[in-house]
Amino acid sequence: MNIVELRRDLHANPEVGFTEFRTATRVVEELRRLGYKVLFGDEVMRPSSRRGVPSVEQLTVAYERAKAEGANEEILAAMEGGLTGVVATLEGGGAGPTVAFRFDMDALPIVESHAADHLPQAEGFRSRHEGSMHACGHDGHTAIGLAFAETMTHVNFNGTLKLIFQPAEEGGRGAVSMVDKGVVDDVDKLFCFHLGLDLPIGSMSGGATDFLASTKLEVRFKGVPAHAAAAPEKGKNALLGAATALLNIHALPRFSTGATRVNVGILEGGSAPNIVPDSAKMVLECRAASYEDNQDLERRVRSILEHSAEMHGLDCDIAVIGEAATAACDRELVELAMREAKEIPFFTEQLESHPLGASEDATFLMRRVQEQEGQATYMIIGTTIAAPHHNEKFDIDERILPMAVQLLERIARQTLR
Amino acid sequence: MNIVELRRDLHANPEVGFTEFRTATRVVEELRRLGYKVLFGDEVMRPSSRRGVPSVEQLTVAYERAKAEGANEEILAAMEGGLTGVVATLEGGGAGPTVAFRFDMDALPIVESHAADHLPQAEGFRSRHEGSMHACGHDGHTAIGLAFAETMTHVNFNGTLKLIFQPAEEGGRGAVSMVDKGVVDDVDKLFCFHLGLDLPIGSMSGGATDFLASTKLEVRFKGVPAHAAAAPEKGKNALLGAATALLNIHALPRFSTGATRVNVGILEGGSAPNIVPDSAKMVLECRAASYEDNQDLERRVRSILEHSAEMHGLDCDIAVIGEAATAACDRELVELAMREAKEIPFFTEQLESHPLGASEDATFLMRRVQEQEGQATYMIIGTTIAAPHHNEKFDIDERILPMAVQLLERIARQTLR
Amino acid sequence: MNIVELRRDLHANPEVGFTEFRTATRVVEELRRLGYKVLFGDEVMRPSSRRGVPSVEQLTVAYERAKAEGANEEILAAMEGGLTGVVATLEGGGAGPTVAFRFDMDALPIVESHAADHLPQAEGFRSRHEGSMHACGHDGHTAIGLAFAETMTHVNFNGTLKLIFQPAEEGGRGAVSMVDKGVVDDVDKLFCFHLGLDLPIGSMSGGATDFLASTKLEVRFKGVPAHAAAAPEKGKNALLGAATALLNIHALPRFSTGATRVNVGILEGGSAPNIVPDSAKMVLECRAASYEDNQDLERRVRSILEHSAEMHGLDCDIAVIGEAATAACDRELVELAMREAKEIPFFTEQLESHPLGASEDATFLMRRVQEQEGQATYMIIGTTIAAPHHNEKFDIDERILPMAVQLLERIARQTLR
Amino acid sequence: MNIVELRRDLHANPEVGFTEFRTATRVVEELRRLGYKVLFGDEVMRPSSRRGVPSVEQLTVAYERAKAEGANEEILAAMEGGLTGVVATLEGGGAGPTVAFRFDMDALPIVESHAADHLPQAEGFRSRHEGSMHACGHDGHTAIGLAFAETMTHVNFNGTLKLIFQPAEEGGRGAVSMVDKGVVDDVDKLFCFHLGLDLPIGSMSGGATDFLASTKLEVRFKGVPAHAAAAPEKGKNALLGAATALLNIHALPRFSTGATRVNVGILEGGSAPNIVPDSAKMVLECRAASYEDNQDLERRVRSILEHSAEMHGLDCDIAVIGEAATAACDRELVELAMREAKEIPFFTEQLESHPLGASEDATFLMRRVQEQEGQATYMIIGTTIAAPHHNEKFDIDERILPMAVQLLERIARQTLR
Repeated sequence: MNIVELRRDLHANPEVGFTEFRTATRVVEELRRLGYKVLFGDEVMRPSSRRGVPSVEQLTVAYERAKAEGANEEILAAMEGGLTGVVATLEGGGAGPTVAFRFDMDALPIVESHAADHLPQAEGFRSRHEGSMHACGHDGHTAIGLAFAETMTHVNFNGTLKLIFQPAEEGGRGAVSMVDKGVVDDVDKLFCFHLGLDLPIGSMSGGATDFLASTKLEVRFKGVPAHAAAAPEKGKNALLGAATALLNIHALPRFSTGATRVNVGILEGGSAPNIVPDSAKMVLECRAASYEDNQDLERRVRSILEHSAEMHGLDCDIAVIGEAATAACDRELVELAMREAKEIPFFTEQLESHPLGASEDATFLMRRVQEQEGQATYMIIGTTIAAPHHNEKFDIDERILPMAVQLLERIARQTLR
Repeated sequence: MNIVELRRDLHANPEVGFTEFRTATRVVEELRRLGYKVLFGDEVMRPSSRRGVPSVEQLTVAYERAKAEGANEEILAAMEGGLTGVVATLEGGGAGPTVAFRFDMDALPIVESHAADHLPQAEGFRSRHEGSMHACGHDGHTAIGLAFAETMTHVNFNGTLKLIFQPAEEGGRGAVSMVDKGVVDDVDKLFCFHLGLDLPIGSMSGGATDFLASTKLEVRFKGVPAHAAAAPEKGKNALLGAATALLNIHALPRFSTGATRVNVGILEGGSAPNIVPDSAKMVLECRAASYEDNQDLERRVRSILEHSAEMHGLDCDIAVIGEAATAACDRELVELAMREAKEIPFFTEQLESHPLGASEDATFLMRRVQEQEGQATYMIIGTTIAAPHHNEKFDIDERILPMAVQLLERIARQTLR
Repeated sequence: MNIVELRRDLHANPEVGFTEFRTATRVVEELRRLGYKVLFGDEVMRPSSRRGVPSVEQLTVAYERAKAEGANEEILAAMEGGLTGVVATLEGGGAGPTVAFRFDMDALPIVESHAADHLPQAEGFRSRHEGSMHACGHDGHTAIGLAFAETMTHVNFNGTLKLIFQPAEEGGRGAVSMVDKGVVDDVDKLFCFHLGLDLPIGSMSGGATDFLASTKLEVRFKGVPAHAAAAPEKGKNALLGAATALLNIHALPRFSTGATRVNVGILEGGSAPNIVPDSAKMVLECRAASYEDNQDLERRVRSILEHSAEMHGLDCDIAVIGEAATAACDRELVELAMREAKEIPFFTEQLESHPLGASEDATFLMRRVQEQEGQATYMIIGTTIAAPHHNEKFDIDERILPMAVQLLERIARQTLR
Repeated sequence: MNIVELRRDLHANPEVGFTEFRTATRVVEELRRLGYKVLFGDEVMRPSSRRGVPSVEQLTVAYERAKAEGANEEILAAMEGGLTGVVATLEGGGAGPTVAFRFDMDALPIVESHAADHLPQAEGFRSRHEGSMHACGHDGHTAIGLAFAETMTHVNFNGTLKLIFQPAEEGGRGAVSMVDKGVVDDVDKLFCFHLGLDLPIGSMSGGATDFLASTKLEVRFKGVPAHAAAAPEKGKNALLGAATALLNIHALPRFSTGATRVNVGILEGGSAPNIVPDSAKMVLECRAASYEDNQDLERRVRSILEHSAEMHGLDCDIAVIGEAATAACDRELVELAMREAKEIPFFTEQLESHPLGASEDATFLMRRVQEQEGQATYMIIGTTIAAPHHNEKFDIDERILPMAVQLLERIARQTLR
């Protein structure tokens, strides 16, 4: 398996959250070929726990495309409707702990750059799916996962190796459905990681801090239309309710206990200038430095939404479309990761911790493991990037790919003894 | 009884709503002297149905002042706390209907003009109670009521003559307490009237239209204080709730069914720049051309108040401090009044109807009479005024006083036969 | 010319405002054939005075469709971009006044009913352009205009007959561009009319009252995007500005001088939950019973829009996309119309006036004529309708078509003498 | 001079900001007696640079009370109107630097506890001025200042010793007027300090961090009154403007650069339920962890205030009534202070820095000194407190008073050499 070729193939075929049909079927096939026991579809996800599932149309288009491009139809069938998670296990020679590694697979809804100085363009592996792009490095994560899987088939170990290929990390939409299915309930040690962020190639951090807990909500206000001139009092005005909610959500107090954020990112409502608007859609998010503050903030946001609706006689339907928690990395795993990295000359710098300053739903996997007395960490594996994450010219330094595999292998050898 | 002297005495001693202690005790004494059966205090008012009762301090100051100025203490005692309504009845020689006349007695919280060209100043009967003023003509109404009472003692009639001296008409605060006590439950015909408005002396209208139904509310928002820098999230911000309510109340839809009004007239809250404000008081009113629209509007206002409070975790206490309804004048009484006015040469113009365009709580008395198959009207008896109603230089042309008495006498003779 | 066939052809080929390419080319061809002098395109419209012009895409689709269906390409070329107005003149035998008649041609963006009991469906002349429909009777207006044009070629008269075929009446978008081009500057008498409204067949009104002045605005707020978690203070939030404007526009005071209306009918802004929204579009309208009050209201709305934008550092672009004025009908023309209708036995009822209670941009044509000492009226020619105006099952009683032509002919004979 | 008696006398006679007439005259007298050159009144303050000056009535009451209690009338006269600052200098034996120490003198508008377990109550030095209280330890600061002044008269030193007794620290109202007068323009080293905060007795910190920059504003909205039913459109509604400002100020974005705070603490407006409110007063504050962010925040707040007013046709008058900056302590002075404290056995703990987490207008004095290449620090001198600062039962452990004097003396000896 050529890891760079693999990564470039994934890069050229980006699939956004819950539509990773081509990616996930390929992951299943490779893992099966390597001798892993592989579960996928509703064996590893609780469908109702997914957040922000795309529309049936979007799911169908992506599904049919994957089928048309030759994806294995038997595997594909089990993933229909967006059940694109995969979990593989390999049993070691003797009894031992269960050690899991998590890889996320989804791309972003971004149009990739056509610029000549953008390497994927120059070298011919730019996105073939216009409007989707691997602009966060998950193509690298998945490639590392498969190469690591292959490597481990040559290693003698005890216990159980578990590889978790997660869909829909972006927006915090996929992890909870795997947690709720029990995927990490038997895990003793969990290693998550991300390439890049702002660590350069050669640098790594054994742990991460400053996860922002967050919740993304989609809200539907439903009122009653009326002719705005002939009978305005007959209407129930959805935009009056939405505007009131918008102002009051932003006016929620700052917290003395840590940073918080609120943002109503989208508001769309009404149909014509002379009709009292009877519906409105709002998409918003709140974040906080602590999980508890974010829960408090979400509770306040919901109260404002509901009462803003009720004061104008509106119905208000609130759906969670994304979520992330905070998590603390276990010192023991952090130090183990640093120690193993030190053994690889390529890694010239080992940090104990690096601030993430963003949201990650791996935190839900980590929390579940820790709740059951297991340990978890979130490593940052530096790679010099061509442009910031989520930018149309984002690209990684591919030299990190085999090095990351080597690091994971060393960690696995140490923990599966 | 010299009606002009009487009116000037009342003018010089104005008492605002529910503090008409001197006025009402004098009314009782005169009526008793004339041989009427006189009820007052809680015999003619349900205390809990009063709206916008002044503070205990204000009531006490006015009460003590009346006592100090020699008001009859036995009568006064029954009026303590603001029970200043009076109802007198005189039985005729034979069986017959009950015909009632209503006179309102209260003054306004206005500083009367000291200008030399203001007649009460020039002739020495300007307000002795600085800050209170008869700027709406109720001094004239009360004087007419007493002179009419005297006149009727010389008239032979059948049935029952009922004279209702009502407190606190201004703001719509006194009538409901008399209605709820049943004061007009036995009335067959009810005549209400107002001097002036925009009819000149010599003109009269047998009926009125365009009463505006209205409700005045006093609202208390109660939250939780907190240091605005040290722990803003601990506070529950009463002013955020109040400001949200204020904007949304004004943003309520116009009605296609007729004119409506809303006004948040007063908002006061908070204590210091660095404290999250934990309380706020709001005083507001709504009005509508129809009683039903005003009830609909009030319901919407209350919903906004309650949900604006709840969205910020506040308690919200809403009290009605004033109310008026609409009413329709019965054609038969309108025509009777016009006919009788025509018999008095002084009245050179008799209108069938004149728009009031304001609120009047006599409407509650009228509605109750009409609900019980009785009839009612609201006459406007023109008098040329020196300045608009509620102006510091308001004054009436006193020549109307004996003429109004004559008109009432003629009406009474016609209806009590 | 069979007027019913003509109307049904127009009904089957509805074109919304400024896309009346097929309709207007046909109008030009017919009028030329009849010997009228015909002007169109920028000869009769000032392009920049049009309101709410459709997008280039919409204009192009409609234009190409008309061309594909065989519309005269030479005429069509002059109308490109939406210049679909037509004005025809016919000179009489001797000197005399200029008398104009106005016909509006546009359809509505409504999906016409497929119900079997909907006559156009049953008889095969339902809309061929899915999503557009003649649901206000302008197909009838145009058919009447052409049949009337033909009739007048057989009549001896003095002076000048002027026929104005106006685009885009719906939303108040087309008349001003014809006024600004001077189309009615030489008109002595102007007759406008509408079929139906709530007068039944056989009834007509010589004039109309209760036009609502109105203005429709499209507003673009432009701010600065920013990551809502990483740097919220870098953003300039377009939705905060828009929500503030929305609440305050609805909170504008009621007017004591007459009915007013405001409605923010559409608000759309933002792009993603984690991006500070940098743009928003708002579509709104205000209306008033008087032209002056509507101007006052529009001025207040604009002030709120501009300051709501500026307080959040936003740019705010306001475009008028529709407008209507009020107008008063000249008594002389009203009476003339009633008199002539009386001569036609079909018209069993002639009213002096009927309330419109809606907005009409013919008022701009009427006002211009009256400013120049001419006279104008707006007649309502009753026809029993199958469902309300703007409803998917709207249809007229076609018997009115030849009768309306007869009425216009009589009016023309009387005025062009 | 018995420092405990002195502090208790000041404690019993608390005077709020700009009314420290008794306190400041006493300070002048003592310093004169000790041989200092003493300036006060407008010699050391620019009157127009004061923030939040009390009303003339409040100033007069306090002034007359001080006079009645025997304050030196000649000194008092120079302080009339609230010019209660005092600056004293003592020249050393030879040339040398100018070293200044700052003491604040004002009390708080708090009712002091009557509880038996409150030491000032138990020992008879509770506030004699009901409603004012030394609840922040400035009585101790002033006592330390005078005792230190006496001590220094026995010390041989070079250069100039400068003692600054500042009025109105609370709310950030007094320092700027002394800075603007040039009081610290010649200062080479400035030492400020505060007792208590959350350091216990025996502990001290040579410097402080986490000053919150803040601005307090008083805003007057001025509109036009109108009868809310008869002519609502004639009014310009001050409360609509104020409520809009209130919501939008609270809705200002969080900053990614550090903590911020906003609070509209007081809003009062309107006069009666049936009058469109024509005036409103708002008192608010904003704060930020950096001076620049606070300036940015204040600029945004002002923009919202102005545009909220203008959108409703209101005038808006904004006055700064309090202000504080941030400041950084100079390492050299911090270390010197720690070193000297270490020499006094009483101080068992010397910290380099302690977070203030509050606002202090000494920062303006510090910034001015540093701008002119001088050095400044803000020490925290621990003392165990009976209740939190600004609490009705606040009290200090008086054992710190002579120890603090000793520390200042050591610092002065080191710096004035």
